[in-house]
Amino acid sequence: MMDSSQEVKHPISLDLYSFGEGHFEKHHITNSEQIIPFLESEHKFWLNMPNLNNIDLLNEIKNIFDLHTMAMEDIINTQERPKVEIYDHFILIVVKMLYSRNNLADLEAEQVSIVIGKNYVISFQEHAFDIFDGIRVRIENPSGKIRKHGTDYFAYTLLDAIVDEYYSLLEKVTDKIEVLEDEIISEEKRVKLSEIYNQRKSIQLLKKVIWPTRELLSTLKKSESFLIKRRTLPFINDIYEQTVEIMENLEMQRESITTLVEIYMTNISLKQNEVMKTLTIIATIFIPLTFVAGVYGMNFEYMPELKWEYGYWFTWSIFLGISILMVIYFKRKRWF
Amino acid sequence: MMDSSQEVKHPISLDLYSFGEGHFEKHHITNSEQIIPFLESEHKFWLNMPNLNNIDLLNEIKNIFDLHTMAMEDIINTQERPKVEIYDHFILIVVKMLYSRNNLADLEAEQVSIVIGKNYVISFQEHAFDIFDGIRVRIENPSGKIRKHGTDYFAYTLLDAIVDEYYSLLEKVTDKIEVLEDEIISEEKRVKLSEIYNQRKSIQLLKKVIWPTRELLSTLKKSESFLIKRRTLPFINDIYEQTVEIMENLEMQRESITTLVEIYMTNISLKQNEVMKTLTIIATIFIPLTFVAGVYGMNFEYMPELKWEYGYWFTWSIFLGISILMVIYFKRKRWF
Amino acid sequence: MMDSSQEVKHPISLDLYSFGEGHFEKHHITNSEQIIPFLESEHKFWLNMPNLNNIDLLNEIKNIFDLHTMAMEDIINTQERPKVEIYDHFILIVVKMLYSRNNLADLEAEQVSIVIGKNYVISFQEHAFDIFDGIRVRIENPSGKIRKHGTDYFAYTLLDAIVDEYYSLLEKVTDKIEVLEDEIISEEKRVKLSEIYNQRKSIQLLKKVIWPTRELLSTLKKSESFLIKRRTLPFINDIYEQTVEIMENLEMQRESITTLVEIYMTNISLKQNEVMKTLTIIATIFIPLTFVAGVYGMNFEYMPELKWEYGYWFTWSIFLGISILMVIYFKRKRWF
Amino acid sequence: MMDSSQEVKHPISLDLYSFGEGHFEKHHITNSEQIIPFLESEHKFWLNMPNLNNIDLLNEIKNIFDLHTMAMEDIINTQERPKVEIYDHFILIVVKMLYSRNNLADLEAEQVSIVIGKNYVISFQEHAFDIFDGIRVRIENPSGKIRKHGTDYFAYTLLDAIVDEYYSLLEKVTDKIEVLEDEIISEEKRVKLSEIYNQRKSIQLLKKVIWPTRELLSTLKKSESFLIKRRTLPFINDIYEQTVEIMENLEMQRESITTLVEIYMTNISLKQNEVMKTLTIIATIFIPLTFVAGVYGMNFEYMPELKWEYGYWFTWSIFLGISILMVIYFKRKRWF
Amino acid sequence: MMDSSQEVKHPISLDLYSFGEGHFEKHHITNSEQIIPFLESEHKFWLNMPNLNNIDLLNEIKNIFDLHTMAMEDIINTQERPKVEIYDHFILIVVKMLYSRNNLADLEAEQVSIVIGKNYVISFQEHAFDIFDGIRVRIENPSGKIRKHGTDYFAYTLLDAIVDEYYSLLEKVTDKIEVLEDEIISEEKRVKLSEIYNQRKSIQLLKKVIWPTRELLSTLKKSESFLIKRRTLPFINDIYEQTVEIMENLEMQRESITTLVEIYMTNISLKQNEVMKTLTIIATIFIPLTFVAGVYGMNFEYMPELKWEYGYWFTWSIFLGISILMVIYFKRKRWF
Repeated sequence: MMDSSQEVKHPISLDLYSFGEGHFEKHHITNSEQIIPFLESEHKFWLNMPNLNNIDLLNEIKNIFDLHTMAMEDIINTQERPKVEIYDHFILIVVKMLYSRNNLADLEAEQVSIVIGKNYVISFQEHAFDIFDGIRVRIENPSGKIRKHGTDYFAYTLLDAIVDEYYSLLEKVTDKIEVLEDEIISEEKRVKLSEIYNQRKSIQLLKKVIWPTRELLSTLKKSESFLIKRRTLPFINDIYEQTVEIMENLEMQRESITTLVEIYMTNISLKQNEVMKTLTIIATIFIPLTFVAGVYGMNFEYMPELKWEYGYWFTWSIFLGISILMVIYFKRKRWF
Repeated sequence: MMDSSQEVKHPISLDLYSFGEGHFEKHHITNSEQIIPFLESEHKFWLNMPNLNNIDLLNEIKNIFDLHTMAMEDIINTQERPKVEIYDHFILIVVKMLYSRNNLADLEAEQVSIVIGKNYVISFQEHAFDIFDGIRVRIENPSGKIRKHGTDYFAYTLLDAIVDEYYSLLEKVTDKIEVLEDEIISEEKRVKLSEIYNQRKSIQLLKKVIWPTRELLSTLKKSESFLIKRRTLPFINDIYEQTVEIMENLEMQRESITTLVEIYMTNISLKQNEVMKTLTIIATIFIPLTFVAGVYGMNFEYMPELKWEYGYWFTWSIFLGISILMVIYFKRKRWF
Repeated sequence: MMDSSQEVKHPISLDLYSFGEGHFEKHHITNSEQIIPFLESEHKFWLNMPNLNNIDLLNEIKNIFDLHTMAMEDIINTQERPKVEIYDHFILIVVKMLYSRNNLADLEAEQVSIVIGKNYVISFQEHAFDIFDGIRVRIENPSGKIRKHGTDYFAYTLLDAIVDEYYSLLEKVTDKIEVLEDEIISEEKRVKLSEIYNQRKSIQLLKKVIWPTRELLSTLKKSESFLIKRRTLPFINDIYEQTVEIMENLEMQRESITTLVEIYMTNISLKQNEVMKTLTIIATIFIPLTFVAGVYGMNFEYMPELKWEYGYWFTWSIFLGISILMVIYFKRKRWF
Repeated sequence: MMDSSQEVKHPISLDLYSFGEGHFEKHHITNSEQIIPFLESEHKFWLNMPNLNNIDLLNEIKNIFDLHTMAMEDIINTQERPKVEIYDHFILIVVKMLYSRNNLADLEAEQVSIVIGKNYVISFQEHAFDIFDGIRVRIENPSGKIRKHGTDYFAYTLLDAIVDEYYSLLEKVTDKIEVLEDEIISEEKRVKLSEIYNQRKSIQLLKKVIWPTRELLSTLKKSESFLIKRRTLPFINDIYEQTVEIMENLEMQRESITTLVEIYMTNISLKQNEVMKTLTIIATIFIPLTFVAGVYGMNFEYMPELKWEYGYWFTWSIFLGISILMVIYFKRKRWF
Repeated sequence: MMDSSQEVKHPISLDLYSFGEGHFEKHHITNSEQIIPFLESEHKFWLNMPNLNNIDLLNEIKNIFDLHTMAMEDIINTQERPKVEIYDHFILIVVKMLYSRNNLADLEAEQVSIVIGKNYVISFQEHAFDIFDGIRVRIENPSGKIRKHGTDYFAYTLLDAIVDEYYSLLEKVTDKIEVLEDEIISEEKRVKLSEIYNQRKSIQLLKKVIWPTRELLSTLKKSESFLIKRRTLPFINDIYEQTVEIMENLEMQRESITTLVEIYMTNISLKQNEVMKTLTIIATIFIPLTFVAGVYGMNFEYMPELKWEYGYWFTWSIFLGISILMVIYFKRKRWF
């Protein structure tokens, strides 16, 4: 287990938080061997790996904490589905953190793995993100729950931070859909269908990540590992219920989008109807008039009307008569 | 449990109903300590918290009734999903009351939490609403069932009042959809698609609230808590079946809306068809006639027809002939 | 149980059929007390309540047969979902009879409740309908199965009569849909979308009633009440399977309707296409010709063609040429 | 059981195949009593009833083989859903044979009932069809499996023959859909939507028949009747899996049809687009030109252009200019 | 079992890989009897059948390894659904390899059967494909896991190679759909609906193959055969989870396609709208103008305007006025 202890260590830079009731120390780790004494400590400690670049370090961690090869592979392979694996002396939780760099269309997923041991929690991030900053603050608070509870509660706070991110993404998507809804219903702004489509994609991606997260929380609730204490179960149940609610809301938003697309399509049809009506009204009024004018533009030698003194005015009365009849007809059809 | 007894109390104003067979008293509570003696009383009592604003009071209640921290958090956090939690000495039920301030499009949800204890029921409302007024009347009735049955039956009457509200909302939605249906099918009034859309949203919201309520009632039925007596089960089953029926009706209404949208779209298409037909009939009759008139409006020096005495009348016969043929053609195509 | 015996009885008019192997008597009941002796009889008897108007009578029935309060409420409240409730000494079955006064669009539901006791069956109808006439005939037949079997078999015959009604309604809906299908596909008659919509509503209503009926039959099959004898189970299973088949057929009809609506919409599109083609053909042929005629109707002093002897005939050849080219073009496009 | 032996027998004509290892005899039965000795034979026998017309004969069969009344009713009522019923001394399997007289649109279902006894198999057909001809050939083959295995294996071969028919129908439907697909995508032939609709109906009918068949095979697999030997289970499982596969393929074909309808609708839209473009191009080019020609056809006394020597040619250059600009505009819009 | 040993053997050509910790031999088999000694070897061996053409050889294999008749039928019949069958002394796994010869539209399935025995793995391919080349390389690597683990692990590597193929197909489909998505949204290239349709078909085919593969892996996980060692389970679970993920991605792609079709249809509608607007703008501006020009082209003897000196210029101002009004109207309607 410790067979790598003779090798030359690369200088590393990790923060290790040792904590317990009435105890808090922040240690700067530059050599993985410095971790070993904490394993025997009466206090709990949290080790956060800000990235997965240093394979040597990961191997040392694997050896120090006696992690299973499959567990380490799950941690390193960032294409895993969210899941929980219950091992004999530790629990591995693999989840996805979601964030959007610019806008919602560019939703990206980053894998976060959490290892819960008897007196330690290790978290592995793909890139050093600031999602756990709030937890660093809470851990320094002497009267906080984190200090009093075990490693299972600490892991819960990490998961809670990630699920909170899902909530805020859900809210962003919901807000964006409401804006689109207003724009489409008021018809004030010309919305592109691809904008609606992007929201649908975000929802799809959120569901793809949250669905297995919900499953893993359900498994965790029912797991009978000694590492999950009975009094922590209500907290795990709480985030489980949050994922259920997010899923339900996503489903509602998905249905909203379906309706939006329907309204969008109907608006196009209604507009086309209006265009057609305009054309039809103008054309059906003026085409017959133009015909009448054409008739009296003919050059036949014998056309009695042409010689009639009031022929021209009579023709105008025909023009007016046809126009008025047409307008009445369209009014009756309620075309305008 | 009683460690807050030395603090200075804020003046509060709560109604406590103490009741039992042949017994009914209404007490005005101004200090939470006044509640304590009732805990030892042989009678049951009901305490209604009209809002969640006074955090100190809520904490005192928590201590007096020895409520679990998680239970209190569920009561205070008004974003909870409807659920039931079975604790050792009490049951917590969290439900949602739905109401619409103006019209159905503005459906709002208010959380109502009910705590069932051995000889007490506490209800927590977000805002003081009048939904429990009917129960106040019934509790004063000496021969009513409420007096005879236990706290489980009393909690049932509270839940029943809330589920009755769902029913009346369902009826409102159903009525509105029927009105829309009549308007769309009769084509008398121009319905906006967004009106249909609003009904769909109301249905979605109702389903979102009623679905977990159904689940919690199912859980309550199967719970083997000593607080739920066997003879109360048929009553709980009754409201459970009501929620099932509401869900089924909502599903039917949702399908109706889908059909309405279809009819709506078809009506647009049919109207466009009619517009196109009008244009086509007028245009295909007069465009050829105008052409013929144009021909005899040409200024060629050598055009024999122009000199013919009956040329003009012959041209009119061509006009009539073309028109009649076209009308026959359209009649055959059943275009009018 | 008999505590209402001292009250003044209202004159009532009920038929009580006492029957058994080799025994049949029809009694006219004018006072509910007349029923009591039959309870001790060795023969079975059937009591049909033709309506639910006489609340006093219903209360007397409740007392005579010792029915549970909840059971009586289920019988009186005609808004119940179909269900079965197994009590200690009787079984309550609540079902819906469906009928259409005029046409299928006005499908109405009437509640029928059946109470199965040791040696009696009571049926409660909302209105006196003739659905049980066939059973009156069969009960008078000395060699019929009804005489030989127990009350469970008799209740089965009542349920069977109701499910048979569902079948005939299914057939009516199926027939109507087939007629609509023929009309839509042959395009002979102009079908209104609302007619299709009415069928969909009938199917929805049938499903809403039959689905819980299926459930209750399934429960009845599995119930281990001493009132349901083993040899009656195949008969109950038989009507259970009938409800399954009706549900499947309803589902098929629902899909047919979806397809019909699709065909309907496509027909509208195809017709619009035809209208547009007619317009386009006429307009694209004559608009250029009218232009040419317009050119030679111009009054320029210097227009060499006008003086040309064959100018007029040459223009006609241009007219013909353009027309023929257009016709060829449209033929190639297979527009007619 | 044998109480009908004194009655006068109608002359009947049935084939009874007695078979076993190294044994095969074909008997012609003209009186149902001739069947009785075979019941005590050490060999198995197969009796095929080619139709259900002779009710007397069916009653005799019922008595000879001691079949339950409900079983006989299931056999005679040809509207049954496919199902299996496990009785004490025999198993009844009711399935549907599907065949199409002319084309796929006229798919018809015929009920086939199979009774498996200790040493006999009876098959009941609605009409004498030739589906079991292949089995007659195989039974005569001395080294075939049929001779060696029990009555359960023989029943399997009958079911297998029926499921094979489903396969060939599935293939026909698949082929027809592929032809429709090619015709629709290539747009060579004008397909009627009702043709696609007919395929959908065939699929619906197939699913309606195969779904309960799958269920019954699943029940048969799990039944623990002494009549189904353990070594026959893999064979039953084999046809079970075939029905699963047919269902999956039907589902795929159903989805294909949905897509086909979509493509069909889109093609209509695309064609309409093309028609509209043609009209728009011609009309927007020539309508302005006609206007210009109309202007110079006016008869104002003072119109300077008319007297200009090059006025006519200048007008032509306007005509050409407008046309060219329009063509460039349409090219840019990629309308042709 | 060995009763075919006296027959004349056909010259065959198979590679047999014998391997174990620190052991690797590649044998060329020309006679099936050469396989027999390996059955008693302490090492594991792998036999790959490159095709199913030689029925005699397959029968010899059947006898040598004592395979069940049904197992052999499953191997030979290449129309099987993917499945696993647990026999007493071996496990049969039937899966499908998917590949596309030219493009994704021509996705083909090839059956691969794997027999896992105590110390052997036999793989049967329909055609000699190169999917197992990577495994040949890994088996020659002395320090690889393959050498150390049992036959269950070896079978896993074969399955893994096949599931990897599914992944690469999923990626191809995903890429193609993204290209289509870009083309449709940017509207740069005219996409044919049949291209989208082909992708949907590929997804359907993939799902049809992967769905039962997932099932079989799930069965394999839960099987309690002595042939599947506990330490191999995590690996099997790993490919099981891969199939789950592929299914989820396929579902997402299927939804994407549905959305793409919607966007496609909307684009057609939008284009038609644009065409109609162009026609309407041109026609509604010039048709009234042409009418005015036609009026002054009439030949009435008494038309005062014609003699007015500024009549012509005044007419032009009418032309301009009408045009400007129309343009303002269209601008207001936001038609351009």
